[in-house]
Amino acid sequence: MASHGFWGLGAPENAGDNTSNQSPTTPRAWCQAAAQKLPGGIGSKLCALLSVAGEGEKTPEPTSTKLDETTVGTCGCNKPCNCLKATEATLGFSDLYSTDLLPALDGDLKTMTFLQEVVDILLAYITESFDRETKVIDFHYPNELLQRNNWELQDEPETLDDILISCRATLKYAIKTAHPRYFNQLSTGLDMVGLAADWLTSTANTNMFTYEVAPVFVLLEYVTLKKMREIIGWEDGRGDGIFSPGGAISNMYAMLLARFKMFPEVKEKGMSSVPRLAAFTSEHSHFSIKKGAAALGIGTESVICIKADESGKMIPADLERKILEAKQKGFVPFFVSATAGTTVYGAFDPLIAISDICKKYQVWFHVDGAWGGSLIMSRKHKWKLDGVERANSVTWNPHKMMAVPLQCSALLVREEGLMQNCNQMHACYLFQQDKHYDLSYDTGDKALQCGRHVDIFKLWLMWRAKGTIGFEAQIDKCLELSEYLYNKIKGREGYEMVFNGKPQHTNVCFWYLPPGMRYLEDKEEKKKRLHKVAPVIKARMMEYGTTMVSYQPQGDKVNFFRMVISNPAATFEDIDFLIEEIERLGQDL
Amino acid sequence: MASHGFWGLGAPENAGDNTSNQSPTTPRAWCQAAAQKLPGGIGSKLCALLSVAGEGEKTPEPTSTKLDETTVGTCGCNKPCNCLKATEATLGFSDLYSTDLLPALDGDLKTMTFLQEVVDILLAYITESFDRETKVIDFHYPNELLQRNNWELQDEPETLDDILISCRATLKYAIKTAHPRYFNQLSTGLDMVGLAADWLTSTANTNMFTYEVAPVFVLLEYVTLKKMREIIGWEDGRGDGIFSPGGAISNMYAMLLARFKMFPEVKEKGMSSVPRLAAFTSEHSHFSIKKGAAALGIGTESVICIKADESGKMIPADLERKILEAKQKGFVPFFVSATAGTTVYGAFDPLIAISDICKKYQVWFHVDGAWGGSLIMSRKHKWKLDGVERANSVTWNPHKMMAVPLQCSALLVREEGLMQNCNQMHACYLFQQDKHYDLSYDTGDKALQCGRHVDIFKLWLMWRAKGTIGFEAQIDKCLELSEYLYNKIKGREGYEMVFNGKPQHTNVCFWYLPPGMRYLEDKEEKKKRLHKVAPVIKARMMEYGTTMVSYQPQGDKVNFFRMVISNPAATFEDIDFLIEEIERLGQDL
Repeated sequence: MASHGFWGLGAPENAGDNTSNQSPTTPRAWCQAAAQKLPGGIGSKLCALLSVAGEGEKTPEPTSTKLDETTVGTCGCNKPCNCLKATEATLGFSDLYSTDLLPALDGDLKTMTFLQEVVDILLAYITESFDRETKVIDFHYPNELLQRNNWELQDEPETLDDILISCRATLKYAIKTAHPRYFNQLSTGLDMVGLAADWLTSTANTNMFTYEVAPVFVLLEYVTLKKMREIIGWEDGRGDGIFSPGGAISNMYAMLLARFKMFPEVKEKGMSSVPRLAAFTSEHSHFSIKKGAAALGIGTESVICIKADESGKMIPADLERKILEAKQKGFVPFFVSATAGTTVYGAFDPLIAISDICKKYQVWFHVDGAWGGSLIMSRKHKWKLDGVERANSVTWNPHKMMAVPLQCSALLVREEGLMQNCNQMHACYLFQQDKHYDLSYDTGDKALQCGRHVDIFKLWLMWRAKGTIGFEAQIDKCLELSEYLYNKIKGREGYEMVFNGKPQHTNVCFWYLPPGMRYLEDKEEKKKRLHKVAPVIKARMMEYGTTMVSYQPQGDKVNFFRMVISNPAATFEDIDFLIEEIERLGQDL
Repeated sequence: MASHGFWGLGAPENAGDNTSNQSPTTPRAWCQAAAQKLPGGIGSKLCALLSVAGEGEKTPEPTSTKLDETTVGTCGCNKPCNCLKATEATLGFSDLYSTDLLPALDGDLKTMTFLQEVVDILLAYITESFDRETKVIDFHYPNELLQRNNWELQDEPETLDDILISCRATLKYAIKTAHPRYFNQLSTGLDMVGLAADWLTSTANTNMFTYEVAPVFVLLEYVTLKKMREIIGWEDGRGDGIFSPGGAISNMYAMLLARFKMFPEVKEKGMSSVPRLAAFTSEHSHFSIKKGAAALGIGTESVICIKADESGKMIPADLERKILEAKQKGFVPFFVSATAGTTVYGAFDPLIAISDICKKYQVWFHVDGAWGGSLIMSRKHKWKLDGVERANSVTWNPHKMMAVPLQCSALLVREEGLMQNCNQMHACYLFQQDKHYDLSYDTGDKALQCGRHVDIFKLWLMWRAKGTIGFEAQIDKCLELSEYLYNKIKGREGYEMVFNGKPQHTNVCFWYLPPGMRYLEDKEEKKKRLHKVAPVIKARMMEYGTTMVSYQPQGDKVNFFRMVISNPAATFEDIDFLIEEIERLGQDL
């Protein structure tokens, strides 16, 4: 067939008048051609569109964004409408089943139409998510949500129409994590290039264990880990590393490597061949250090908590004291985990001083930079990580402060070959030694996992799209917003900071005291009442769906708000809104 | 604004003639309206299309599927063409950067256009992947692939045009895991509903740790795990479980729970409080059992290998003998892992006999059904798992035989509450006890991970789309194909089966002897040469890109092919093709 026009489209032979440039002259003629040729089900839609519109059927506009009860069962335009019915009438999702899709014979068009329909639902959801008029969450209690929909699994298949309805229902009750006022976790926001990369990753549907099945992704992991090690400051980016399923697992890897480095026989002989070990981390560190110690058979009692100062930083003198104490008790200190960006306060432990102590006592120096590691990409803030280049291993989660879609966590390791020696089991069905390519790219045997999800592509593609300076700008902006918040509330009536001084990360920790509580004389009574304020305000935020921010107690401090900003969609106005909202929801308490 | 026509489209006020039914009468008028109203950037594309086509520009057809060297830099149609240039001219991706996308002000349309462009690339890739005329892989050696593209990460951002080029390049060199002739791993194929669900999961971009941030997904995990436990045969579906990042981690969880159940003090005190432990698994079991033992501080020497019979099944009498031996040596037997579907032979250990021994010696009975667990969904094949209902824990990977996109692995646990007790650390910044909803839905503290990827939605949505009977049909078909393969080659000249008898799973293990090797008298020489056959044929398969199948040695057996079928796209003809291809590529060896 001769090619005519963009995408090979032109007037079909029997489609009426043709002009000399082969462009179709009536919409109907054009769309008849399009229906057969356009990718992604677009053509079918156009045909449906024209034939329906041609019959004068009236449907509402698709411009609205707010969700309401009637969303489920509409076209994704989120207003009550009969679009879906019109689509169904033409495309017949109510007559189609998953078995009609690829690999079914002639399943191409149906597949493209179905996937395009899903994409349209997702695109509408994305637009909504960034709209401040939309709720962050349409909250329902678990039992209520279980009853609002039929979520059960049955023996019989459902139609694709039902599947699309399930997609809409799932999104209706989901948290809009891209929403500019979603501040609840260290991972917030939704990056469009990262999202595109994740869609591609799902489509490639492969596994990181060998070059054979993931050639590009394995190379991109190699390139990216090297770049990250260069940024850490390791000579020529040398060393090792892996992307793992989250910061907790990255930290567990670090502890595993530290133990193996000191006592390689532990791999075969287990902990019975090893003296009683001691690990050290600050009282503000992440719970995954203890979780790792429990799992690895070291035991939580072997994790010795080091005192933190008022702003949450580990006190090096206390570290040294506790190392000496442990040695006196017959423990062998093997692992120190300093935190670069603690979970609650956002504090950066003094890495240089800690590394000196680790060197003195020959202990593995790990930096848990799951939250704060990304600040090394900012020329303005990287000083907070001074000394990280001395680490034996570093956890760094691009899915937090760099807003890479979940999950994306790296463990970087200074010593080459150690991970391989520590974890390899030489499975000969997977890591055949007589393959025809360079086996050093079969990196799977250094992992604890066998199959490993492809987490690299979204980070790599975002890095290409933003450049290092793009990440820097994004990080700097979040820190600027948190400084704005800090300055705004530190002297404001009704607010009290949990610790003094400007926060080092985007964590701003504060109490809000409702007017009726501000002048209470009874300190115990005040504390008791204050403890209940944050949970109530948080519950109201969720019920109104206007914003979400976290709270918690810490040590002897009653519940306070922990505001964190990693969401690139947030602006100064959103910070203002948060404060107004806390005051609106809390004034009667 | 009044609504007119489907999707609210109609003729704009200045767009020429209107008919009484408000449908546009010229393509250009129609498309001008469409450009402003259509979701997903489709409208812009149409405008681009018409204005280009209107100027008589000639471009080739989009119907081709085969990749060639010129793909990178074209429109995704995979033929040398100037489509992209045409698109660029209109949509200007070469002038756009990621900072122009949402959350940028007025970033909606650009975002939709960009994401739609990515989706079009993905849809084209999907169509291609199912086309037998397309290569499974466009293979290049690592160093060559590193040089074929610029994969480096820079300081400066790239344009969205460059980003799209990177997406195309990545897919060009990727394995087409959906391809009907891709048999390389236990996880093959690409399910369209599963893919749609994974795209939605990426878009929701949240985390499984609390109900607060993943209300629907947490409920769906609850519903699905309960259903899976019912199928296992546990009363009323009671018990516990979790979706973990793969079978290796699921098995590690099981070992961790078994240890904790017997010695709960290990959590605080570590292995020094515990006697020397012994775990038992067959010599054909997956390497993750040893990997787990190494990580948990138990040590690989404490994993005692039980003899398997000729077809790869654990010999119960040897298990009992080795348990007694271990006890005599002072070890405490704590864990038996039976395999339901071994990695290489696809053998099912005799679960009932093994469970009797576990009961007798009061040892935790784990079933590693990562590969074979799914057969329980088939009325025809579930007998192979008889006894699984007696297990204390079961690993079951829907991402293998059920063709759910990677990753999707479940660990099911009989005893309620044990996971929570074993792993919880009560992080008060995440699992606040004064939340306003039922805290039993905050399931994160029973995980080893902190953040946990949402792996549930693709399984749940596929289950809704297929029903249990749909999974059953898919599984039965794969087993039918493997039986066809077995019958075809068992008496065929030049083939030798690695073990006698019909395989229990889809694994068919065989040697192919090229004609020149068949009548060699020197058995050692024959063995030596045969060992090299499979690697060479495999390398040639990859270089031609026609198919991919795995091979390995096992024990004293030289390299043999391990064919496995989990790809729902495969047909009898693909099996025929595989045999022809092995013979074509191997005849000269």
